Amino acid sequence: MQTQVTKTLNGLDTAQMMATIEAIKGQPDLGRFQFRARNRWIDGGENRSTIRDFYGAGREDDSRADAFTFTNGEPPILLGHNEGANPVEFLLHALAGCVTTTFVLHAAARGIRITRLATELVGDLDVQGLLALDDAVSPGYEQIRIRMDVEADCSDAELADLLAFTHAHSPVCNTVCRPVPVVLERVMTHGSF
Amino acid sequence: MQTQVTKTLNGLDTAQMMATIEAIKGQPDLGRFQFRARNRWIDGGENRSTIRDFYGAGREDDSRADAFTFTNGEPPILLGHNEGANPVEFLLHALAGCVTTTFVLHAAARGIRITRLATELVGDLDVQGLLALDDAVSPGYEQIRIRMDVEADCSDAELADLLAFTHAHSPVCNTVCRPVPVVLERVMTHGSF
Repeated sequence: MQTQVTKTLNGLDTAQMMATIEAIKGQPDLGRFQFRARNRWIDGGENRSTIRDFYGAGREDDSRADAFTFTNGEPPILLGHNEGANPVEFLLHALAGCVTTTFVLHAAARGIRITRLATELVGDLDVQGLLALDDAVSPGYEQIRIRMDVEADCSDAELADLLAFTHAHSPVCNTVCRPVPVVLERVMTHGSF
Repeated sequence: MQTQVTKTLNGLDTAQMMATIEAIKGQPDLGRFQFRARNRWIDGGENRSTIRDFYGAGREDDSRADAFTFTNGEPPILLGHNEGANPVEFLLHALAGCVTTTFVLHAAARGIRITRLATELVGDLDVQGLLALDDAVSPGYEQIRIRMDVEADCSDAELADLLAFTHAHSPVCNTVCRPVPVVLERVMTHGSF
């Protein structure tokens, strides 16, 4: 009889984690991913995204039987009917999740066990930018602040180091902090996506 | 008997839209918004955000009876179990929604009626950055491309102008294209959020 023991730390399979890291070290092209979303306008401030396929680790992923769907909406003060959270709120959700997952991953790589982790995010935004009322006002967030409440089996100094490392290595945090080019072009597909 | 007629264009109440713009022009402070999210780590790459309250137009919003909740997850290749879309995919959803809503809003302001609008987004990302395997690789998206399929009652030149205007004025697009500071700090709340 064989017994297979899966060692996990912070809910991550540590053997798989180290194997993934070694595989990418040996063949850096495996690190290249392409993520995708398709979105359809419904009416007013309501639209819906479908997310399923992506490319990564050298192939098209086929792990998702069904697509995820998410609805953007706007509150009444922004001309909507609360059909969903609005896009700038979804950005905060993406940032919260990415900072959390990056923190948990690198804690596991360092052998740190996390017992509690929660974040609170606030982002300041002046809609004069969106409405093109004042060219001096940027349409995007001015700043986003993340407060993290975390408890783990390590020192405060180790947590502080992990926090700084997370800020530098979280993909969404890096996409927000750094200028990332967005190409927006019109195509004629006649409704095919 | 009084009859109230609400004029809408692209699903937006045009009178409310113009009144909002005039109000903010007269009192620019009304344009200041603060959006918020609270997130709790569950296990591994799974975590969940709660989004409800925000500040805007000079007061705390109370239009949402219930909070929105969204779950981040990761696919197996990224050590998860597809508990939800992952954070970088949620960023694409936020960007798709914001570009769409900005386009629809400014089309309405210009008197353009949209009959169809869909987008397809792809974002390239090298996980060597996240894994800190190569300092020369940025952890965030290298580039995001948005292909928009749109049909409206105006000329191609007007649509091209609206597309460029949208790129410049979409809050999420602007947050991605421009460097936006993210402050990440540890707080001791002992699980209170």
